[in-house]
Amino acid sequence: MSQTVEQIISAKWVIPVSGDGQKSNKVLNDYSVVVDKGVILELMPTPEVLSKYQTDHHFQLNDHALIPGLVNIHTHAAMSLFKGLADDLPLMIWLENHIWPAEREWVSDEFCEDGLKLAIAEMIRCGTTTFNDMYFQPNMTAKVAHTLGMRATVGMLMFDFPSVWGNGPEDYLKKGLQLRDDYKHHEMIQFAFAPHAPYTVSDEPLKKIATLSNELGIPVHMHVHETAHEVKEGLKNTGKRPIKRLQELGLMTPNLIAVHMTQLQRGEIELLMQNGVSVAHCPQSNMKLASGICPVQELITAGVNIAIGTDGNASNNDLNMLAEMKSAALLGKVFTGSAQACSAHDILHAATYGGAKALGQEDAIGSIEIGKAADLTAINLNTIESQPVYDPVSQIVYTAGREQVSHVWINGDIKLNNQQLVGIDIDEVIQRANHWKNAIQGQA
Amino acid sequence: MSQTVEQIISAKWVIPVSGDGQKSNKVLNDYSVVVDKGVILELMPTPEVLSKYQTDHHFQLNDHALIPGLVNIHTHAAMSLFKGLADDLPLMIWLENHIWPAEREWVSDEFCEDGLKLAIAEMIRCGTTTFNDMYFQPNMTAKVAHTLGMRATVGMLMFDFPSVWGNGPEDYLKKGLQLRDDYKHHEMIQFAFAPHAPYTVSDEPLKKIATLSNELGIPVHMHVHETAHEVKEGLKNTGKRPIKRLQELGLMTPNLIAVHMTQLQRGEIELLMQNGVSVAHCPQSNMKLASGICPVQELITAGVNIAIGTDGNASNNDLNMLAEMKSAALLGKVFTGSAQACSAHDILHAATYGGAKALGQEDAIGSIEIGKAADLTAINLNTIESQPVYDPVSQIVYTAGREQVSHVWINGDIKLNNQQLVGIDIDEVIQRANHWKNAIQGQA
Repeated sequence: MSQTVEQIISAKWVIPVSGDGQKSNKVLNDYSVVVDKGVILELMPTPEVLSKYQTDHHFQLNDHALIPGLVNIHTHAAMSLFKGLADDLPLMIWLENHIWPAEREWVSDEFCEDGLKLAIAEMIRCGTTTFNDMYFQPNMTAKVAHTLGMRATVGMLMFDFPSVWGNGPEDYLKKGLQLRDDYKHHEMIQFAFAPHAPYTVSDEPLKKIATLSNELGIPVHMHVHETAHEVKEGLKNTGKRPIKRLQELGLMTPNLIAVHMTQLQRGEIELLMQNGVSVAHCPQSNMKLASGICPVQELITAGVNIAIGTDGNASNNDLNMLAEMKSAALLGKVFTGSAQACSAHDILHAATYGGAKALGQEDAIGSIEIGKAADLTAINLNTIESQPVYDPVSQIVYTAGREQVSHVWINGDIKLNNQQLVGIDIDEVIQRANHWKNAIQGQA
Repeated sequence: MSQTVEQIISAKWVIPVSGDGQKSNKVLNDYSVVVDKGVILELMPTPEVLSKYQTDHHFQLNDHALIPGLVNIHTHAAMSLFKGLADDLPLMIWLENHIWPAEREWVSDEFCEDGLKLAIAEMIRCGTTTFNDMYFQPNMTAKVAHTLGMRATVGMLMFDFPSVWGNGPEDYLKKGLQLRDDYKHHEMIQFAFAPHAPYTVSDEPLKKIATLSNELGIPVHMHVHETAHEVKEGLKNTGKRPIKRLQELGLMTPNLIAVHMTQLQRGEIELLMQNGVSVAHCPQSNMKLASGICPVQELITAGVNIAIGTDGNASNNDLNMLAEMKSAALLGKVFTGSAQACSAHDILHAATYGGAKALGQEDAIGSIEIGKAADLTAINLNTIESQPVYDPVSQIVYTAGREQVSHVWINGDIKLNNQQLVGIDIDEVIQRANHWKNAIQGQA
């Protein structure tokens, strides 16, 4: 007799993405993923699945590729309300005259709640199942992600200076760890230390984070070497490049998620590799803010784990991981002068398994494997834009638009069903976004 | 009494895009475009339009931005059937082992007909109303574009060597001009000389093209300085850089559409400006093939006309002008190190008016102005991804996906109506694409 399970997802192509370093992802044709209690129970050929399992929820996705849910490794999700507020400006004018004043005036629990809903709706619609966030009011990040059933790693934000979220390093640390404690029974809400950047957090609090990170096995999510200016100022102020300083402070470990990394010398790439640091590559943000280019192919070749992120909506201006994958592949090629660099297969790996590994969650998510959480994304390739299909991985990275994402499951719960968001009221989310825009533009 | 007209299109935002060199495009709120006999009759505020005009076709696009139809300045449309055939390979292996053999084996009138339908369906769905094509079987490009009501500039292809379309320069020229003559009464099908590249067409035929282009006022559509390798070989073989050679042959005129131009020295930018040459910028193709980067902001600053193209689907792998605009803006910034470079406003201008000007059709298309053809694209900005809207031009370039293109008119005829293609059978187009894929993969 066949076993009853919660869901069977049969797809034309299942692309499990392996974590074994083999980057040419195998493609399983006419395959099914059996899901029960939020977990992947089995992968098997579709013609055989119904002889072994039965279910009330059989998704037959005859035109679709099924991939691991995408992991967005670097966001400031609530900033979605500032999407397009100030574009095409020099970095410091953008920050000092627009973003920082707007943040000082507007960021609050309520603002972040509305911004997070807008961001999470956008992320699910493009196939993202996990995001790694760094922003004010992480209490709201945890709350909204939990409420909407989104998998999140919440950044325990820290600066040297006070903000709406804390008074200084000790206060930030205390609040962050308290929040983490509040969510210790919510496995989908994980936490990372999130010291903003080398130039905004001083040595003592960074040392404390290094110690706690090692003791507790908590990731450290930090902007590092985003621009040449940052590195130059770091050298001037401390006598060493920021990476060197972080190494001396004990932060160069497999827990570190070093975001941006557009400035790297060869010895530094070896340092990252030897210490198991993950690099969070945000190509569209680096391009739009003219920050520089992360040497992704060199890092891949050296064996450094790469993850992909969109950065915040104020500097992208979307949270579209499909577009980010294409940008990563394209930028990697023109930067190295080699059309082989940053292949579609490598980039899909980075956007799934690479992200999971950066978060220390590669045993739970990041690939379609038995025993892992059912974080899954289905992409319809039977469109004018993606046909014909020679290699579904190429079509996903180079042709698929977010509108082709048809189904998304997080921990086995369906969040996008035939392109319809489940449990999120789009009209209300948009209405709230407009409320904030009118307030910010003085039209309230 | 009010005047009866064929259509009134009322949009939340009308962005006419001016051709006067003022690149910060004005945005007209709650405006209407009055269309009759395929032509823009008037632009006026929506609250007043119904007191002056009446119509049976009033489109009320309350969430939309209306822009001039996008002009894709460089395509090999029929190559859509090779979309994703061979990715992530070095340029010469890609060409010599994959694309050229596939072309020799498969390209025919029938192949091109099916590939063109696939391409034109894709182009209309992303808001493109005009494409400038260079490929084998231009007879089919003209025929399919005409049949589907797409505006096209058809390349009169030329190589030194024979191909499926001709035996040599004289034959190519004869066939091209004959085809142009066949379509002389079809104003939406225009023609350009399309000598493939400096390294594939020798001096004598290029001189003839220069003469004919000047006499007849026909554009010349040509790959120029696509890679450093091309320039180096040109220097070696002719003793001069290809641009210099084209200048001596009389091709540096306002008729020239120089495609790619990733290799430019400062004096060459002045040469382009002084001679009124247009540059066709194809950022995604240049990135994906690792060809190099066109110095777009420098060209804009120098006053050179810039147009935007996707290139063919084998090297992109889409014909999505919205994504191409974003790539142009982002690449321009990281390349120059200035977040101000290649602003959304400049890039929207390039993708509309700039393209029209390159084609010598700036009096007919490229902006929403009285007397011009009604080539119009409506984009729904009331989505999770584009809300809130601070500046609709920013949202179009940085956030809008092709799925937000809701309506497209070409010469006043509606080609996309509420996201539905008019007059194109998607299922049949996809079925034919699959037919060719199976044949090419040996599964026929």
